[in-house]
Amino acid sequence: MKLKETKIECFLALPDIISLLNLSFGFLAILMALNNQITISSIFIIIAVIFDSVDGWIARKLSRIDKYGFGKNIDSLSDIVSFGVAPAVLLYIIGASFSNEIGYLSAVIALFVVICGVLRLTRFNVISDKIDFKGFVGVPIPTTGILLSTFILSRLFNIYLGMFLMVVVGFLMISNIKYKKFYNPQILPIIAILVLLAIIPNSMIFWGINIPATIIFIITLVYVFITPMLNLFKN
Amino acid sequence: MKLKETKIECFLALPDIISLLNLSFGFLAILMALNNQITISSIFIIIAVIFDSVDGWIARKLSRIDKYGFGKNIDSLSDIVSFGVAPAVLLYIIGASFSNEIGYLSAVIALFVVICGVLRLTRFNVISDKIDFKGFVGVPIPTTGILLSTFILSRLFNIYLGMFLMVVVGFLMISNIKYKKFYNPQILPIIAILVLLAIIPNSMIFWGINIPATIIFIITLVYVFITPMLNLFKN
Repeated sequence: MKLKETKIECFLALPDIISLLNLSFGFLAILMALNNQITISSIFIIIAVIFDSVDGWIARKLSRIDKYGFGKNIDSLSDIVSFGVAPAVLLYIIGASFSNEIGYLSAVIALFVVICGVLRLTRFNVISDKIDFKGFVGVPIPTTGILLSTFILSRLFNIYLGMFLMVVVGFLMISNIKYKKFYNPQILPIIAILVLLAIIPNSMIFWGINIPATIIFIITLVYVFITPMLNLFKN
Repeated sequence: MKLKETKIECFLALPDIISLLNLSFGFLAILMALNNQITISSIFIIIAVIFDSVDGWIARKLSRIDKYGFGKNIDSLSDIVSFGVAPAVLLYIIGASFSNEIGYLSAVIALFVVICGVLRLTRFNVISDKIDFKGFVGVPIPTTGILLSTFILSRLFNIYLGMFLMVVVGFLMISNIKYKKFYNPQILPIIAILVLLAIIPNSMIFWGINIPATIIFIITLVYVFITPMLNLFKN
């Protein structure tokens, strides 16, 4: 490869721009969190999840041949910012607002989540074209973002349960539990509508609860916990 | 590859632990920045740079055969946190402390630096084993961390110059200017001593200036700017 062939324009395609939008909303979620804009930060993380889901879909629609792995690399580097650092910072900011002790504890958990996220993404990049089965090894990293954000948006958030969930998801990310790919064309439009309703501020609040956010939170919880539980019964 | 071969312990080696230390100090630099601990945040970024320099060196000493690219992947995912997000957040926190306008401007520049960092690392991962010349294509990403941190530690920091430098380094990261690898066994111990002196708080302050930090800042500036300038004369 010659120097002139190393220009970034030589590699960049539409799905990569979508990945950069995922990255941008992830990074802006961090800036929002540190300005104590907890709700907006959560919404931005969900928007990052949406772009993250769309980039792979567009790449398939365009029949992209990602010869050099540019798409795969830009995707995981964006994911660590949006679903590793952003949820971690958000958890810490909320934790530190309670007390010094909860602040320190949430800082440790935040660091743990980021480390697990990096390990999860690194392993994914290494094994993705070498495994002979479908599905994910370890819970996918956007789960941290979806769980924490919908928990916050649901208005049912509890800091102790939030910290506990992040620790568990951290361990599940670096586990080698096999998760099924969730792809059902019938249910997908319903999920999409729920997500949109969940992130429109004050849209679907009944009895003090954001109903769509609560539903997504519960669906994600079930997805995360049902596989390890079924594994327990199998053994 | 079977499921049991996907355990993270199957891949993890000593250099990866060093990469995780780089990541950890990078992430803690973010938490320090958002607690307005600007000096500690800068020191943590420099410590992350040290671990980042050491991991490759240890991998070579151990003659590590990174068959699957686990080391390369964990390294770049750590780098985007320590030298993309951390300096960006630090710049934003300082900018926002001046005025709303500088806050907004520094947020935009921070986002730009993170995007350029992701593009730089993605391209590096894609071309690193395909280019037929030695050296870096585009200025390496730790430059953002070294420049901003030593500028702050030097006590000569100016927000306008800081923002300007970050924009320029962003463009130089995504450029395809060829940078030489800086490796000189004679000068390396001197640089190491300078770095250690620079990060010991209040150690070498004369005339209100941190001398070692200032020297590293100037050396880095020269490294960053001399190559594009020489290229201008060549053309």
